Amino acid sequence: MSDRGILETFPNPAVGRDYVIEHTSPEFTSMCPKTGQPDFAEMTIRYVADQTCVELKALKLYFNAYRNVGIFYEAVTNKILDDLVAVLQPRCLAVVSRWKPRGGLTSVITAEYKREA
Amino acid sequence: MSDRGILETFPNPAVGRDYVIEHTSPEFTSMCPKTGQPDFAEMTIRYVADQTCVELKALKLYFNAYRNVGIFYEAVTNKILDDLVAVLQPRCLAVVSRWKPRGGLTSVITAEYKREA
Amino acid sequence: MSDRGILETFPNPAVGRDYVIEHTSPEFTSMCPKTGQPDFAEMTIRYVADQTCVELKALKLYFNAYRNVGIFYEAVTNKILDDLVAVLQPRCLAVVSRWKPRGGLTSVITAEYKREA
Amino acid sequence: MSDRGILETFPNPAVGRDYVIEHTSPEFTSMCPKTGQPDFAEMTIRYVADQTCVELKALKLYFNAYRNVGIFYEAVTNKILDDLVAVLQPRCLAVVSRWKPRGGLTSVITAEYKREA
Amino acid sequence: MSDRGILETFPNPAVGRDYVIEHTSPEFTSMCPKTGQPDFAEMTIRYVADQTCVELKALKLYFNAYRNVGIFYEAVTNKILDDLVAVLQPRCLAVVSRWKPRGGLTSVITAEYKREA
Amino acid sequence: MSDRGILETFPNPAVGRDYVIEHTSPEFTSMCPKTGQPDFAEMTIRYVADQTCVELKALKLYFNAYRNVGIFYEAVTNKILDDLVAVLQPRCLAVVSRWKPRGGLTSVITAEYKREA
Amino acid sequence: MSDRGILETFPNPAVGRDYVIEHTSPEFTSMCPKTGQPDFAEMTIRYVADQTCVELKALKLYFNAYRNVGIFYEAVTNKILDDLVAVLQPRCLAVVSRWKPRGGLTSVITAEYKREA
Amino acid sequence: MSDRGILETFPNPAVGRDYVIEHTSPEFTSMCPKTGQPDFAEMTIRYVADQTCVELKALKLYFNAYRNVGIFYEAVTNKILDDLVAVLQPRCLAVVSRWKPRGGLTSVITAEYKREA
Amino acid sequence: MSDRGILETFPNPAVGRDYVIEHTSPEFTSMCPKTGQPDFAEMTIRYVADQTCVELKALKLYFNAYRNVGIFYEAVTNKILDDLVAVLQPRCLAVVSRWKPRGGLTSVITAEYKREA
Amino acid sequence: MSDRGILETFPNPAVGRDYVIEHTSPEFTSMCPKTGQPDFAEMTIRYVADQTCVELKALKLYFNAYRNVGIFYEAVTNKILDDLVAVLQPRCLAVVSRWKPRGGLTSVITAEYKREA
Repeated sequence: MSDRGILETFPNPAVGRDYVIEHTSPEFTSMCPKTGQPDFAEMTIRYVADQTCVELKALKLYFNAYRNVGIFYEAVTNKILDDLVAVLQPRCLAVVSRWKPRGGLTSVITAEYKREA
Repeated sequence: MSDRGILETFPNPAVGRDYVIEHTSPEFTSMCPKTGQPDFAEMTIRYVADQTCVELKALKLYFNAYRNVGIFYEAVTNKILDDLVAVLQPRCLAVVSRWKPRGGLTSVITAEYKREA
Repeated sequence: MSDRGILETFPNPAVGRDYVIEHTSPEFTSMCPKTGQPDFAEMTIRYVADQTCVELKALKLYFNAYRNVGIFYEAVTNKILDDLVAVLQPRCLAVVSRWKPRGGLTSVITAEYKREA
Repeated sequence: MSDRGILETFPNPAVGRDYVIEHTSPEFTSMCPKTGQPDFAEMTIRYVADQTCVELKALKLYFNAYRNVGIFYEAVTNKILDDLVAVLQPRCLAVVSRWKPRGGLTSVITAEYKREA
Repeated sequence: MSDRGILETFPNPAVGRDYVIEHTSPEFTSMCPKTGQPDFAEMTIRYVADQTCVELKALKLYFNAYRNVGIFYEAVTNKILDDLVAVLQPRCLAVVSRWKPRGGLTSVITAEYKREA
Repeated sequence: MSDRGILETFPNPAVGRDYVIEHTSPEFTSMCPKTGQPDFAEMTIRYVADQTCVELKALKLYFNAYRNVGIFYEAVTNKILDDLVAVLQPRCLAVVSRWKPRGGLTSVITAEYKREA
Repeated sequence: MSDRGILETFPNPAVGRDYVIEHTSPEFTSMCPKTGQPDFAEMTIRYVADQTCVELKALKLYFNAYRNVGIFYEAVTNKILDDLVAVLQPRCLAVVSRWKPRGGLTSVITAEYKREA
Repeated sequence: MSDRGILETFPNPAVGRDYVIEHTSPEFTSMCPKTGQPDFAEMTIRYVADQTCVELKALKLYFNAYRNVGIFYEAVTNKILDDLVAVLQPRCLAVVSRWKPRGGLTSVITAEYKREA
Repeated sequence: MSDRGILETFPNPAVGRDYVIEHTSPEFTSMCPKTGQPDFAEMTIRYVADQTCVELKALKLYFNAYRNVGIFYEAVTNKILDDLVAVLQPRCLAVVSRWKPRGGLTSVITAEYKREA
Repeated sequence: MSDRGILETFPNPAVGRDYVIEHTSPEFTSMCPKTGQPDFAEMTIRYVADQTCVELKALKLYFNAYRNVGIFYEAVTNKILDDLVAVLQPRCLAVVSRWKPRGGLTSVITAEYKREA
């Protein structure tokens, strides 16, 4: 299973300003837990940092670690949200996964976290 | 007539979080009840789950079951909404059908359900 | 002049639900009343039905009836709105006409009706 | 099985001139003979007529007749070529079928006939 | 019926050079002779002039004259070719008509003339 | 300098209804007042009429009158807004100019007028 | 290493006709042998069959078997060509791999086989 | 380091009107401070001016001055925002940087300033 | 009338190699000699140099000099070809002008020069 | 000046087969030798290898080395061709540079080498 320990951070260079950071990988791949066949998605994260930002190369390695993991669309999207929230402690954060067609059906899963005031 | 019994579910892996699941089939086809000619649509469902999510392969088979059914655009869009709401008991759910041109006219039907608070 | 009597209706299959029906013809054509030259538009109607929906083939014939009518962009868009509101008695209805370039200028006219509460 | 007898013709209005006629349906559908699941293609025919042209509405009905037929991509493309050549006796004719993804793979089959000099 | 007398010409400003002139109207419309319903096409002409070129406004009026004429795709494409060849006496000339979908089928007709050496 | 007197109007055919009229010219050109080089823009106006609408051919001539005028992006966008508001007395009106790259930079200027209640 | 034994075939339904079969997977992935990082490509095969065609599901499984194989772009494209030629004995066959950017560089490798006459 | 002194201004030609000015450069480039490799972005600024507007050629030179500067995505976006706010004293101003893929990941950073009332 | 004397050249840096140089301006504008109205085109030149290449800024000024010249599509395309051939003495050279719609008709004029062997 | 010594190679894995290798960088940048302003291009190389292929990371570094070099479009395209031919000794090789607009003009330079038989 992908480990949130892979995620590295660096200090937010503009603490106190509410600005938006978005990273998108068109190369996310995991496995279907039922059939063992590969799934492919475009994975986007979008967040407002508090004290720390996620380091880009570490984020890539964290995504790569799902390559041979069997996990459903809904579960992986929520797990990425949980991992990033735990590591970054952001003001808010969203994860959007857009999956290539399976059985003719494309899918989009969108999960969001918002820190309580 | 397509049977909502085809629809299978699995437990929502993130109960309590309001996240959005969307599935789109560009291969929906049914029949015109007046002329008997085939109609073609891109069919999208979008919902916030409560306890259960719809299984992707079952959703495909449910859509396929309309292949030789004579039914109007407005009726089939509302029936799919009713079936999915009955099976999933979601927090909210929308169905959008985008139909290929007939007599030069393309059509889009959008129906939504929202659970009362 | 195009006659609203061409417009036929059928009973709304989901009375009481606020869902949206949209039909678009990329093949609308009328005449410029000043020059007698043909004009071309993509014509879209979008509405929430009350008791009745407009029949698709009748809508096509109603649009076709403008083929040799001399009428300005603004006037024809408002007349189509008036005719459809009179026949359908909808909860709300919009007409959008997108005109091909004349003298290098493209035009879009958008008119809306909303039933008073 | 779809019957070439559905195909109707009309006299070529420009006998002796080598001009090209092309018809494309984005709404072709047949069944996979192994799984029974529907397949979807954009089907194009392109030909130089000799004495007769294919009638457009009959071509549509001929295509529609494959709706519930189980047949492989390669076989249906060649059968349509054989049927049209038999009925039209054209100078040359090509059939191109472009299939929606199955197992992540899209396919294009192109078959051609050329009358010997 | 549209009259080739509408077509006006002006002297080729570069007699002796083989250069290509192409004009495209996305607004061609005629009538189906069987159903009386309107057809819509993008009409392109492409030619190498000899002594004369076709005047642009006259070409537009010539196209407009088909507005209420019942004529098949294949026939109108060949008639336009014949009319332009008769009036322009060009070195070569092609007509391409691309028709909007009827019964789900789009069509393209391409006819060419080449002066014999 | 372009003269607002070029702008002609006609009576609004639907006085009292709040509908939107939009005209776009992809062929607007003026001159840079510093370098004397030509600038090119797509110019859009969008308004809700009160008693009068702007005549399309006059609008084209009004735009054409900027062809050899030296004027900055920001100034010309605001001047067009002022001229149209003065002539049409609309309920509201917006002007959007989208400029082709200069020094690698594209620009968009958006100015709006809203009649006070 | 991916094994050509995965590739299954079925008899060509139109032996003797030179028609073209093309399959494209936008989901091919292998590993960089130097860095161990994943690479992603759209992989296309195009061939004229002799006695046998490649089975679509087996082709998918053959492509999937490269998922954790370290191999260069040029090598994998030529190996797929060699494997398919060995199994299908086609009249001709081409493999085109289009790779997502690495270090800002996208790559396309095209290898072809043609049976000697 | 890029110097905000490069930024020149000119008087706002429509002081008191809240209109929007947007400039976009698809040719922004800086250096990664860790690897020394070049980064590439499309850089957009959007603002409502108060007394002054930014001069277009000076803005280009200001952007060009980052060409050999090592700076992170998040830092450069916030620095451009700070520099422009300091020089223009605008009513509001946003900077959006859209970065080409690095390690397969594209990024978008959006920072905004709004003058307090 | 635009003067070929505006065109400046510089020595071909690779004399003896047959390589292709192409320049495209989407901002060409001239006047219709009949109506006085502006015309707009995308103008492309493509050539194989012999001893000299055309200087880019001079080419821009040469194109700009047509801004207020009344000249037909066919004439201006051939004149640009003649001017460039006279100044550059190239091995071959083509001019392609793509004109925005007038009376609903877009036009493309293509003229070529090839040095005799 | 960029040094061809940066270019590293590896042995062609399919010596004797004529297959095509293409690499494209959308991030090439150099300087205008007259104005000192940066130029931006998409740079493509396409070749048939003999004994060696160019290593992808080295090619990136070779391109990056032009970042602060003042050189004309035509010269840099021919220099890259000369450098790659000298290092790779390929059967054939082409370089295509597509430049972003300068003064409203986009440019494409295409140079090719073919080994004599």
